Amino acid sequence: MKKIKSYLQEYSYLKSIQSLLHWDMETMMPSGAIEDRAKRLSYVQGKIHAHITSPEYSKLLKEFSRKKKLSASDKIFLKELKWDYDLNYALPSEHVEALTMASARASHVWAKAKDTNDLKSYLPHLQKLIDLKRREATYFKTKKPYDALIQLHDKEFSSTQISKLFSELKNGLLTLSNQVKEDGRFVNIKDLKGPFPIEDQRALSLRVAKLFGLSDQHSRLDISSHPFSINISPLDQRITTRYDLNHLDSLSSTMHEVGHALYEFNLPSEWEGTPFQEAVSLSVHESQSRFWENIVGRSKGFAEFIHPDMKKFFPKSMKGITSDSLFRVFNKSVPGLIRVESCELYYNLHIIIRYEIEEMIFNQGLNAKDIPKIWKEKYKEYLGIVPKNDSQGILQDSHWAGGAFGYFPTYTLGNLISGSLYMKLKKERPQFEKQIAKGEFSDILKFLVRNIHSKGRSITANDLVGELGVQDYLNYLSEKFKG
Amino acid sequence: MKKIKSYLQEYSYLKSIQSLLHWDMETMMPSGAIEDRAKRLSYVQGKIHAHITSPEYSKLLKEFSRKKKLSASDKIFLKELKWDYDLNYALPSEHVEALTMASARASHVWAKAKDTNDLKSYLPHLQKLIDLKRREATYFKTKKPYDALIQLHDKEFSSTQISKLFSELKNGLLTLSNQVKEDGRFVNIKDLKGPFPIEDQRALSLRVAKLFGLSDQHSRLDISSHPFSINISPLDQRITTRYDLNHLDSLSSTMHEVGHALYEFNLPSEWEGTPFQEAVSLSVHESQSRFWENIVGRSKGFAEFIHPDMKKFFPKSMKGITSDSLFRVFNKSVPGLIRVESCELYYNLHIIIRYEIEEMIFNQGLNAKDIPKIWKEKYKEYLGIVPKNDSQGILQDSHWAGGAFGYFPTYTLGNLISGSLYMKLKKERPQFEKQIAKGEFSDILKFLVRNIHSKGRSITANDLVGELGVQDYLNYLSEKFKG
Repeated sequence: MKKIKSYLQEYSYLKSIQSLLHWDMETMMPSGAIEDRAKRLSYVQGKIHAHITSPEYSKLLKEFSRKKKLSASDKIFLKELKWDYDLNYALPSEHVEALTMASARASHVWAKAKDTNDLKSYLPHLQKLIDLKRREATYFKTKKPYDALIQLHDKEFSSTQISKLFSELKNGLLTLSNQVKEDGRFVNIKDLKGPFPIEDQRALSLRVAKLFGLSDQHSRLDISSHPFSINISPLDQRITTRYDLNHLDSLSSTMHEVGHALYEFNLPSEWEGTPFQEAVSLSVHESQSRFWENIVGRSKGFAEFIHPDMKKFFPKSMKGITSDSLFRVFNKSVPGLIRVESCELYYNLHIIIRYEIEEMIFNQGLNAKDIPKIWKEKYKEYLGIVPKNDSQGILQDSHWAGGAFGYFPTYTLGNLISGSLYMKLKKERPQFEKQIAKGEFSDILKFLVRNIHSKGRSITANDLVGELGVQDYLNYLSEKFKG
Repeated sequence: MKKIKSYLQEYSYLKSIQSLLHWDMETMMPSGAIEDRAKRLSYVQGKIHAHITSPEYSKLLKEFSRKKKLSASDKIFLKELKWDYDLNYALPSEHVEALTMASARASHVWAKAKDTNDLKSYLPHLQKLIDLKRREATYFKTKKPYDALIQLHDKEFSSTQISKLFSELKNGLLTLSNQVKEDGRFVNIKDLKGPFPIEDQRALSLRVAKLFGLSDQHSRLDISSHPFSINISPLDQRITTRYDLNHLDSLSSTMHEVGHALYEFNLPSEWEGTPFQEAVSLSVHESQSRFWENIVGRSKGFAEFIHPDMKKFFPKSMKGITSDSLFRVFNKSVPGLIRVESCELYYNLHIIIRYEIEEMIFNQGLNAKDIPKIWKEKYKEYLGIVPKNDSQGILQDSHWAGGAFGYFPTYTLGNLISGSLYMKLKKERPQFEKQIAKGEFSDILKFLVRNIHSKGRSITANDLVGELGVQDYLNYLSEKFKG
């Protein structure tokens, strides 16, 4: 155990370095250094892969598994180590390189294609990635090919399970969104009018981050074109956002990233470099960001708490806005075409569309050229609207261009988990919503640290909330939108 | 050759990573991450050392040296590779670790001691470092012990040579500074009065950096407590400065760092990771920063050029200031106690004092406890002033606390080289001072790129300007202050 921990210490250093190279590239690096940086990132990537697939490491694992008196915790530890080893070992480095090259090219073409609505130039690159990912799926033994890609992001779920969950969720959401539409209270709402001075947006974001529990001794908030959160080292969590003078999206985006950062910060540092100091899965990670962004940040209590701050920072925009109307502004529910601009009520329908298409690609042989048509049909059916062009359709997300298939479902699985955590928290600490209204968030954080953060990968989402269903989440939404 | 270049490519990647970890620590890192970062820096440091002292590398060098048809350039290349290998190989890793620990501790104590003027707490740490550096000198075969430490920063010079140069320089400077004092034109000058808004200081710095030739596609300007310049990768040069609302030091500090950055940027990238893509020596590096900061940035032509900009940015401060009086403001010459605040005329006397003390420590056995007395005597003798306390004396610089002995002389050697380059440039391009007044700096940069930057370590300072003397530099100063 000691030997393994010391071997993986180096792994954690290499991951740190990779994170810093990446963070810097997205936030600070002068643009002309991109090729220099790509070479260095690929060098470190190679070092990481070599380190955790080395014969030396394989020997250490074997030695450890041969030990007689393994505790229950040791057995979980070993299982997780082996999972990672097998996953990394299964992928030939030529394949990883081919994928890196193809996704770099596709991302480049995608960015242009999105700007110019030029689907044609992008489709062959998308097909190339689909082919590579189809091949990747064959390196793993899974029931269905798509399962192989899902497990890279969440090993607790198969496409069969997700299809069942998402189908139930879709029905629930369609019913609920029709009711909310009829009711009208969350529909006919004017957005707050800008401008929102950037410096004030930043000050407000920093204030909320600190109140949620992210210490400025151990974090930074910067600007990047897509908000993200990254662990540079256990005591160094960095988040980014983007500011738009006329929209106040930075606040919820920051709350989202703070949720990720709090998880990483509170992982048990004595297990540095090992699975026990890693998140259970991307879905559980996402449950944390969604918890702070939506369940806390879009609650009635939070609107009440933040109301005076908002008045102070943006007196003109907040003229005549009560705390109750602010709550409804935060939860305005109108279906839209763009996933990242979507409200809580419709968000998961965007994800379900992407999931269903991925499932068709990998389990049923759908190809790139046929996606746009299906995309439109599904938007028409689930959201009642159709993209006018591909930039508002299949070209809106960067994920597929980056080779990330099997990733989208974790967003909705994260929402489902956050819903179940909400119900659990309400039972354990019924006062928590009143505390939010007073700006007290420490009980929430303690609950999440004790149940999730401090456990690393020694638990599963199943341990956390029982077998995952859709009812908790649907109940949470009903409470909010019909309450 | 191919094998060596490919082996050293990895060396360059590791150096990149080290630079980024360091830059980030000084400019961006949240304070609570310092211990995490120290571990990662020390990990990378170890990797670098292991990489360039490995048996594999030693074998490659031997193979290369056994080749029959080595060109003249190949021979220089091999000589430089061997120099580095021997230098790194000579230092036992236990010694390097002991030194790292001792200097980390000493730096920590020094920072407090400087703030509280508490010399007593610092002296034992300084003595410990002196002892370690005395031991370090024994790992190398040099005529005098101090030479071993000097060669770590500049291998072209010995203490015998430097003592001779500095003694001539000291006499020249003492004569010249007495004349300047009597003349009075550069003495009775009022500093510009602030405030100088930080944003305007930054804008002015960036404008000058760009005009000097540092592309914003390949550089950044940030803030740190001590200004520095660092090569993250060939196409990614970063400089830092600090801003004081009431003093305009940021401009000359930026010009200084731009000089370093231009050198690094223009090193031949086809030799990445090898000595041919490295600076000749720290002295020549310093000649570049001093060239842009002083010879260009404190010239009459530059005062003429920057005058309208200064009026635009700082109208109140510049009221009644002509371009000629701005030139004299830039060159105000009064002896002071603090090295980093010193004007060009007195700066080298500060360095000579430190050099003479280091020479006494390593060649003559002077110990820490006896330095403060000698410090005061020398300041009295050379500058006519005596520090009132140790914070203004021996405690003012961080170098010794960081274990950097043999480093100070490169500052003055750099000045001497810059003086000789100035004379060479005047001969080659007599128009260059008139061009400065018009804001045209490209001919200067071309001259430096052709003669220095593009050569890497394939030349020496001696190749550049002939045997180094003090006369060119003294003539340059006389021209300015007596012209």
